[in-house]
Amino acid sequence: MISLKEAKAIADKELIRFSFIREPVSLYKPIGYILSLGGKRLRPSLTLMTASLFGEDLHHAVQAACAIEVFHNFTLLHDDIMDQAPMRRGHPTVHVKWNTNTAILSGDAMLIEAFHILHGTRQEILPAVTEIFTQTALEVCEGQQYDMDFEKRGVVSEKEYLRMIELKTAVLIAASMKIGALCGGSDAQQANLLYEVGRNIGLAFQLQDDLLDTYGNPEVFGKAIGGDIVANKKTYLFVMASERSAEKDQKELLRLFSTTDLQPEIKINKVKALFDTCQVEKITLDKIEYYLQQAKICFDELQTTTENKSQFNNLLDNLLGRKA
Amino acid sequence: MISLKEAKAIADKELIRFSFIREPVSLYKPIGYILSLGGKRLRPSLTLMTASLFGEDLHHAVQAACAIEVFHNFTLLHDDIMDQAPMRRGHPTVHVKWNTNTAILSGDAMLIEAFHILHGTRQEILPAVTEIFTQTALEVCEGQQYDMDFEKRGVVSEKEYLRMIELKTAVLIAASMKIGALCGGSDAQQANLLYEVGRNIGLAFQLQDDLLDTYGNPEVFGKAIGGDIVANKKTYLFVMASERSAEKDQKELLRLFSTTDLQPEIKINKVKALFDTCQVEKITLDKIEYYLQQAKICFDELQTTTENKSQFNNLLDNLLGRKA
Repeated sequence: MISLKEAKAIADKELIRFSFIREPVSLYKPIGYILSLGGKRLRPSLTLMTASLFGEDLHHAVQAACAIEVFHNFTLLHDDIMDQAPMRRGHPTVHVKWNTNTAILSGDAMLIEAFHILHGTRQEILPAVTEIFTQTALEVCEGQQYDMDFEKRGVVSEKEYLRMIELKTAVLIAASMKIGALCGGSDAQQANLLYEVGRNIGLAFQLQDDLLDTYGNPEVFGKAIGGDIVANKKTYLFVMASERSAEKDQKELLRLFSTTDLQPEIKINKVKALFDTCQVEKITLDKIEYYLQQAKICFDELQTTTENKSQFNNLLDNLLGRKA
Repeated sequence: MISLKEAKAIADKELIRFSFIREPVSLYKPIGYILSLGGKRLRPSLTLMTASLFGEDLHHAVQAACAIEVFHNFTLLHDDIMDQAPMRRGHPTVHVKWNTNTAILSGDAMLIEAFHILHGTRQEILPAVTEIFTQTALEVCEGQQYDMDFEKRGVVSEKEYLRMIELKTAVLIAASMKIGALCGGSDAQQANLLYEVGRNIGLAFQLQDDLLDTYGNPEVFGKAIGGDIVANKKTYLFVMASERSAEKDQKELLRLFSTTDLQPEIKINKVKALFDTCQVEKITLDKIEYYLQQAKICFDELQTTTENKSQFNNLLDNLLGRKA
């Protein structure tokens, strides 16, 4: 299996191709802009790494990997409008740098472009690849809708929250790995196993994001701690705390999460105290560990070398050890 | 060839299938809503009619026809946000009835759904169908972007305007017919001829829309006359008038098209007087007639019966005789 670093280098190089400017410039420039902001390139890298488990020729996987990353960046572009986010990866978001109409339309063009790139996948596997891609793309929209719906509600159950992040985040990582497997030439069973691996990784990642936003080391995390609390974002921590708190604490939590008037530092400390009362940090860490183990168990069932298995285990420990 | 009425009935019946409600309701209900608002179903009808020129089994063409109509309605949904349009076909637009975020996300899901439906086209022709569909979808975005860019500019040349409406409107009608031909089993040459037929029809339709908005019979047109003038919309009439007016009149036209303070009736009369000075109505009618004839000439080159040819000529005369 190729390394994450090798995979990212291939993805980065290929994605430059989609940053060239066509006419009308006002439509295509924002696409090049958001793609050039970089990021971890986790999804296309997983596609390429997974493909390399089954074959050495990554030519076809590269197309699919790019389609997935372009799709992912399309979701970021439109989500940023919906969330009214001013910044993305340290730069102004597209709807701020240009305007909302441009962000809507450039996003639309990116989504079409993602399908365009995907259709370049080789003929024999195209039906299977387009099916999983299209299904996943719809699910990601469903996840974003649930996320927006939940923001307007008081209480969200753990089950509902996990289903939401599964749709919004995990299925695309799952599809990245399944599509990589199909491009590499795997059979359906191995491809489905890798879907399960990716789904568990995705869930673990999202929970880790939730955790680090409140309990991360600011120097390692790279942004201010407590942003989710200040923004009243319903994360796994909030969901578990509101499920497990005594009635009085639950009421206080809901009150804190319905105001924007409090001083950030005071609000963060009050919420963290409520979180601590019901051991939310420990619960979340355990849940992350659970999904991490599930991912490893599924990967272990693959028909691949022990070397690949240990390389993958190390990769997961590395990716999920960000807090250390 | 089946009639327009027969084709519309098939399209209407099939499209009901996409109006069912899935979870999350907040994502899928607006999709069913906009699809249920009806409309002429011109694009899917043309797909079905064209397919029927080549074969009697419309099974495969029906899928593609639905994909095209779902895509078309996606563009309406997002365009309505961008244009801040309050009404669509006599009903509140999605961003008004729900909100902008819902309209963005439901539109995204519709675009994905359009590809999903399209991928059901039969295997042998899928690469050709997806290629023309994807290319066209991107072009429609380009057309919408040019339209928005032009609104911010003073003068737009005839050539630029025609290219804009070609992208925004004509290529999708062209693709509807080409895809219909491919689904019906035509060869590439016949399919390309039908693309040209559709492109010319699309241009004629858009120019007719421009014309009727100012010079139509209010009773037949179905909405108030002069809406484009009141909204400072740069139509073919404006473009031709500003190209052909003396410097003084051109300045006055630009002044009128940069204000929203004037009383509608006064503004419409002033602009119409300037249009009349350079015979804009006649110029536009001639241009529509030119594209209509081009469409007929291309259709006449098809290897099909004289009966089909005369049926199609009558259809075009009917569709473009709306003003009478």
